Amino acid sequence: MSGAFKLVVVGGVAGGASAAARARRLSETAEIVVFERGPYVSFANCGLPYHVGGVIADRRKLLVQTPRSLRARFGLDVRVSTEVVRVDREAREVVVRSRDTGGEYRERYDALVLSPGAEPVRPPVRGVDDPRVMTLRNMEDMDRVIAGVQQAEGPALIVGGGYIGLEMAEALRHRGMGVVLVERLPQVMAVADAEMVAPLHDELRRNGVDLRLNASVDAFETTADGLVARLSDGSRVACGLALLAVGVRPETRLAREAGLAIGPSGGIQVDAQMRTSDPAIWAVGDAVEVKDLVRGVPALIPLAGPANRQGRIAADAIFGRPSRYTATQGTAIVKVFGLSFAMTGASEAALQRAGLGYRRVYVHPADHATYYPGAQTISLKLLFEPVDGRILGAQAVGAAGIDKRVDVIAMALRAGLTVYDLEEAELCYAPPFGSAKDPVNLAGFVAANVLRGDVELWEPEELASLRPDQALVDVRTRAEFAAGTIPGATNVPVDELRARLGELPREKELLLFCHSGLRSYVAARLLTQRGFRARNFSGGYERYEMWSGTAARAAAVSSDDGMLEAQALP
Amino acid sequence: MSGAFKLVVVGGVAGGASAAARARRLSETAEIVVFERGPYVSFANCGLPYHVGGVIADRRKLLVQTPRSLRARFGLDVRVSTEVVRVDREAREVVVRSRDTGGEYRERYDALVLSPGAEPVRPPVRGVDDPRVMTLRNMEDMDRVIAGVQQAEGPALIVGGGYIGLEMAEALRHRGMGVVLVERLPQVMAVADAEMVAPLHDELRRNGVDLRLNASVDAFETTADGLVARLSDGSRVACGLALLAVGVRPETRLAREAGLAIGPSGGIQVDAQMRTSDPAIWAVGDAVEVKDLVRGVPALIPLAGPANRQGRIAADAIFGRPSRYTATQGTAIVKVFGLSFAMTGASEAALQRAGLGYRRVYVHPADHATYYPGAQTISLKLLFEPVDGRILGAQAVGAAGIDKRVDVIAMALRAGLTVYDLEEAELCYAPPFGSAKDPVNLAGFVAANVLRGDVELWEPEELASLRPDQALVDVRTRAEFAAGTIPGATNVPVDELRARLGELPREKELLLFCHSGLRSYVAARLLTQRGFRARNFSGGYERYEMWSGTAARAAAVSSDDGMLEAQALP
Repeated sequence: MSGAFKLVVVGGVAGGASAAARARRLSETAEIVVFERGPYVSFANCGLPYHVGGVIADRRKLLVQTPRSLRARFGLDVRVSTEVVRVDREAREVVVRSRDTGGEYRERYDALVLSPGAEPVRPPVRGVDDPRVMTLRNMEDMDRVIAGVQQAEGPALIVGGGYIGLEMAEALRHRGMGVVLVERLPQVMAVADAEMVAPLHDELRRNGVDLRLNASVDAFETTADGLVARLSDGSRVACGLALLAVGVRPETRLAREAGLAIGPSGGIQVDAQMRTSDPAIWAVGDAVEVKDLVRGVPALIPLAGPANRQGRIAADAIFGRPSRYTATQGTAIVKVFGLSFAMTGASEAALQRAGLGYRRVYVHPADHATYYPGAQTISLKLLFEPVDGRILGAQAVGAAGIDKRVDVIAMALRAGLTVYDLEEAELCYAPPFGSAKDPVNLAGFVAANVLRGDVELWEPEELASLRPDQALVDVRTRAEFAAGTIPGATNVPVDELRARLGELPREKELLLFCHSGLRSYVAARLLTQRGFRARNFSGGYERYEMWSGTAARAAAVSSDDGMLEAQALP
Repeated sequence: MSGAFKLVVVGGVAGGASAAARARRLSETAEIVVFERGPYVSFANCGLPYHVGGVIADRRKLLVQTPRSLRARFGLDVRVSTEVVRVDREAREVVVRSRDTGGEYRERYDALVLSPGAEPVRPPVRGVDDPRVMTLRNMEDMDRVIAGVQQAEGPALIVGGGYIGLEMAEALRHRGMGVVLVERLPQVMAVADAEMVAPLHDELRRNGVDLRLNASVDAFETTADGLVARLSDGSRVACGLALLAVGVRPETRLAREAGLAIGPSGGIQVDAQMRTSDPAIWAVGDAVEVKDLVRGVPALIPLAGPANRQGRIAADAIFGRPSRYTATQGTAIVKVFGLSFAMTGASEAALQRAGLGYRRVYVHPADHATYYPGAQTISLKLLFEPVDGRILGAQAVGAAGIDKRVDVIAMALRAGLTVYDLEEAELCYAPPFGSAKDPVNLAGFVAANVLRGDVELWEPEELASLRPDQALVDVRTRAEFAAGTIPGATNVPVDELRARLGELPREKELLLFCHSGLRSYVAARLLTQRGFRARNFSGGYERYEMWSGTAARAAAVSSDDGMLEAQALP
């Protein structure tokens, strides 16, 4: 084989495994060597929390491939427990070290693919090196966490409310463990907009998670009570173990030491074919910098789907094919007990940071026809370009049908479609699955109404400074109004509006709302056509409830955005 | 109000109700009158089978709106049990008849919207007028069916295996009734490709439905056993009641008698703004002819979503807005006990009839990560343009995640995207919801592999005439091979291929297959690169099993495509 083209892959999970398998499909003659630092290749890293929680009972199910199966199927030379410690670009060789024997040797390459992934951040606080303070990245971490859980007296402390933190909170509750979840921000899921994840806070608490927002860990201490975390709010939490899940950082040491270009985001810089600044070296997965599809800027967006596709594209490029990776849009989902939260594209916060103009609408439809049993509310936020209506992002939270709607919008966003296209989307409908006007259509209708000028919106931030010439009008039924409303609102049900026009102040601007924004839209059309000044509240009281707690929490904390935006991949 | 602009709407369900409500949002001053022949408006017609089955226990849940609620909310003048019997285009008046009193009167209009819907076809067989032979279109039909079920001795006979027939088979089994389902074609769901609905046949039978394919009813007779249906296969079925669900026909009588243009498909002809050949008359819903998005031809595609959007567009047009209805792509779904079948775009059969070129691939991935509990197989067929890869249609069947994948592909199809775009689709992934390579990505990969020439396919039709220089090779494991294979195949597991190359005949063309087409693709790449002639079988043994029974059934019957393609709307 000495004369054969030789591909070396560093990292045998997700992107690396994809690159190696694809490479073999493209070339039967290439020699392909995969180095993996850990003892396992191609394991199901997104499944780790579910084995901890016992949902995936059989640990072996996580081992999707083994070195032996990869040799049999793809003729790959997979060497586990073997770390690549240096890249000698001049010689086109890597220096590898056996983790078992400590012995080092060199391996020649014609093409090198780096797929080192991203490592959990360990905040530099006192006591963080205590063995009971863990992270979760691979099978070994998982085994340690499970052993820790079995020995632990007292609850688990989870630090960080991103994907891993939330999934692990659920997992450990499933195992019957007490869970304290500490999150430095006033919200979980830093990548999301605050109001859209507010229902996750309630869901966590409903399921027995002691959620501490606006708090971080100052130190870990060992006391007579065992491991104790001192929190920034002055409280102390005695815990059997702690899991750090405050985000991940691209593993770029190898690339940096080899002098490869690192992008402004801190990830390995690659071109559209995943090639680094060295023409013989490619890089894929969580360690690379990608282009953010919506914002067009370099970004770190660690996700399993993109990692797999990048591996495929790198292999294509190495074997002379024109495949290109365009950009990452950040489509992701997390299950939190009975709810799920999903998003695609940019969040409102990200658009604000980027200085990009946008409009936002909220809808709260049922996941399927309400007359069919089991319908669940979907809270869906749609962000779009204020002139041409191009879709910029979507977020949704609810108990069912979340993934479907975000996937459809993700496809539309990728295609550069507009909110008008969402109006026209022709989707599956039968009562168990959706509605004749699907939530995706509905979001399109509401957004298009705004762009066409059919209705003007008011925003909740205005509530803090209502003027005397403004009046809040709740157009829901008397019963809904009695059960709770926005402070200061008067009640005129939409179905009585025409008969009670005389009661409404013509000299005031009417700020209308209902439960979800639909009835108040009808009311706004009615009133503006009859000479009133009226604006609608997109998303209605449902959104108000999501927003109000969020606003209070945000006001209670100084604006500290030090949190790493890049959460661990699901 | 005599001077006000006056809109008259004929038909108060779906399209008609949408048109009236939208019209009010656009004009507070217009007079809006809605005539509905039946006693109910805006009822949930897609929910009727589920109330029959008891899944929707409360009948009132089907009554989404009432004349009273529509007056309160939208100021609509809704007149139920009132039939429009004639349109006087010259006078711009409709002649209406009260079904209660029989009295007739005239109503002036400035704009008229026809939303008469489609009526169930009653085949002209002897005895079809027996009151125990029913159809299901509206609340009254539903009440009759329920009363009939309560009185019936013996099973229900359902004639026709379209949406309504299948949903009613499930509903009546839920009520504990025996069900015989007679379908003239060798398959249920005439709009679908035969092999893709084969699993529905098994599912029906597993759930106690006596499915009679290739059979139709020649006559209904009353005997000592009660109602008896004589079938075309010579058998007789004694039944307590019969439900005709052989398709629907657009209700065009009013339009025809008024001299409005009728399109080649038999539906009312409209322009992109839903305007008929009379500039003061619009038509929407199941009675109109639409453009088929993929084939570009006039078609009847009765679906609830399009009907609602057309109503909205007609109202927009009447009030001077530029909204346009482009085309219908035929996205639809049906639940059949534990399975669902969904499709979008053209079927293969429809492409063949239209003489359009296409390629097809099949994939059988799990709906979510297989290591997470509850994963179910999705059988997905993707049809695409053979040169540019534009998506032409998709069909899927399975127990979970069907609606999501077809919706995503429906959005992509609408946007004119290609199979290459499906490769790149960035969709929600966490183990409970999908896989890092979603079924949509996978279908894109497989299709793109075909278009790029990475693999050549063989088709099951070739099995009938295998040549001596061809060899069928099953690359699955020994255990899978032993449990059942394609007759004539030899077994060489993919993981042993490289070691056993010497056993394979170099002079023959190798027709490879595995379970789903993935391992045999790997094998095909391996073998062709090593100088063998090899083709892959897209969809593998899963597809073979769906196809083989289907082929046998189709061969058993003369090619009779007299069945109406337009099934009743879900």
